[in-house]
Amino acid sequence: MMDTSLLLLAIEDELKKSVQKTGGPGLDELRRMIAYHMGWEGEGAGAAAQGKRIRPLLVLLSATAAGGNWQTALPAAASVELLHNFSLIHDDIEDNSPLRRGRPTVWRKWGIAQAINTGDALYALSHLTLSGLAETASSGIALQAARLFHQTCLHLTQGQYLDLVYQSRSHLRVEDYWPMIGGKTAALLKACTGLGALAAGADEAELQAFGEFGRLLGLAFQVQDDLLGIWGDAFLIGKSTESDLVEGKKSLPVLYGLEKGAAFAERWQRGPVSPEEAPALAALLEDEGARLYTEQAAARLTRQAMQALEDANPQKEGGDALRGLAQTLLNREK
Amino acid sequence: MMDTSLLLLAIEDELKKSVQKTGGPGLDELRRMIAYHMGWEGEGAGAAAQGKRIRPLLVLLSATAAGGNWQTALPAAASVELLHNFSLIHDDIEDNSPLRRGRPTVWRKWGIAQAINTGDALYALSHLTLSGLAETASSGIALQAARLFHQTCLHLTQGQYLDLVYQSRSHLRVEDYWPMIGGKTAALLKACTGLGALAAGADEAELQAFGEFGRLLGLAFQVQDDLLGIWGDAFLIGKSTESDLVEGKKSLPVLYGLEKGAAFAERWQRGPVSPEEAPALAALLEDEGARLYTEQAAARLTRQAMQALEDANPQKEGGDALRGLAQTLLNREK
Repeated sequence: MMDTSLLLLAIEDELKKSVQKTGGPGLDELRRMIAYHMGWEGEGAGAAAQGKRIRPLLVLLSATAAGGNWQTALPAAASVELLHNFSLIHDDIEDNSPLRRGRPTVWRKWGIAQAINTGDALYALSHLTLSGLAETASSGIALQAARLFHQTCLHLTQGQYLDLVYQSRSHLRVEDYWPMIGGKTAALLKACTGLGALAAGADEAELQAFGEFGRLLGLAFQVQDDLLGIWGDAFLIGKSTESDLVEGKKSLPVLYGLEKGAAFAERWQRGPVSPEEAPALAALLEDEGARLYTEQAAARLTRQAMQALEDANPQKEGGDALRGLAQTLLNREK
Repeated sequence: MMDTSLLLLAIEDELKKSVQKTGGPGLDELRRMIAYHMGWEGEGAGAAAQGKRIRPLLVLLSATAAGGNWQTALPAAASVELLHNFSLIHDDIEDNSPLRRGRPTVWRKWGIAQAINTGDALYALSHLTLSGLAETASSGIALQAARLFHQTCLHLTQGQYLDLVYQSRSHLRVEDYWPMIGGKTAALLKACTGLGALAAGADEAELQAFGEFGRLLGLAFQVQDDLLGIWGDAFLIGKSTESDLVEGKKSLPVLYGLEKGAAFAERWQRGPVSPEEAPALAALLEDEGARLYTEQAAARLTRQAMQALEDANPQKEGGDALRGLAQTLLNREK
């Protein structure tokens, strides 16, 4: 088996080298805001604050599975993680979220103006970092990667646009769900596996196959997330304010219930759900078939994702690591 | 003389083609928010709402002056204007500005969350558009242009970081001014002239020379802007709330006065300036030498910018147009 801890160290190194570029005379606080958000500095810094670096790991493992060296793909790995974190900083403002991974969000600590700009700096940095592929791979690969990356960025904003619009729209159907998470979650995971394969010198067909694996993995991951957000252990005891029902999130089970237009929909339209009310409402939603429907969707997408990985015909070592990572993500309990 | 009206039409066409890419099923409002900001749609749409498209014009004229075809540089021209407008959308949120070119800003019309995301979409679009240079020029040029563009984006956020920090810092010196406007204004104009030359196939030395012209032009332009912001005709009658003194802007004359630490500085530290008070305070600042100092700086930078243009050894037609554009910008009265 591949030792992913070595890869994670290399990713962290590459990320730190990139972020170093935002500093300079008089600019250290700009660098520090990013280092705080990345989980390296400030109160609460450490592994839990850094997140799991799933996305850059997907890039490196996809590069290996496509027959390349993971070292070649390092700029792409760092760039997707920087892009992901840019979008988190902006999402936290847009969603008015005070906490991220248990710590105050950047906008809560430094205000909305600096937080918007810090996100923009990370965005610029993610692009700058990606262009390092011209050295580790080739100019042609760097250019193709940049195009794929820009398309992904645009797709992310389209997904986020829909998410914001849905918050104030009461008549939504299950079919409205897919373009939103297609942009918000699946597009970036598709970029991860696609960029990894591209860095390894994959041809158009392989690139498509790896990209499709990432896209389906992203969809399966999100649907699984939606299940845990309502029926995860923490939310069934009525003590967490983070249940998707309390947060009013338009997740797949909720859209299913809204489209059904029965008792759940009626209650939902009446206004915010309290943490105490969440367990009973989750049970009602389950009775109306939303849980089964969502579990079946998760199972189907998981199957399709694993099949897409086989279709990409991965090399043994990287392929095994990707299978393991995908299984870990899709069978998680929280 | 070159007919710039033809260029402006081509720029507008290219911009519209780019913005079209943000749309799609269910996404028309995202496209409309951008089209509104660009001055094409919604209440108050028209020439005045579009701005002068100075930056893309600089790109095309620099390409011609460097011996190329302006058509080759069109993707670069559109990309700098999209980038400029991305930064305006975010700046308007960060500065809490309700109006832009006489119309409600995007965040005032659609809320902060959508405005942040719409800016992000424009940002992605500006990068995507730039990559069109691979078709109009070459892959090598597109890659080099992308790197220059990313560095510029990072520089913009560094300048904006300083601008935001300065707002709450009372002890500032004249020397603090230059890194701020170096990032906020000069970096993008440097990118304009540099990208134009690059698209024309300029070598490293020409690229440097054209870039230096843009950078100095940007500095001269901003210092001129600072003069007009305090001593422009509109602000001497005490009826405008838009005087830089009323807005509390840390412009060059203000920093000069603060560093001097005399009567102006004392008044400034006491708090906001009313529109009625602005003319007398402008006179006080002038008495302390800030106006002369700033005029001399503007004159020196203008001279240096025009010299840098000659050092770039521009072709006749494009060179004449650039000289004309620079003179118009630097001698303007508002």
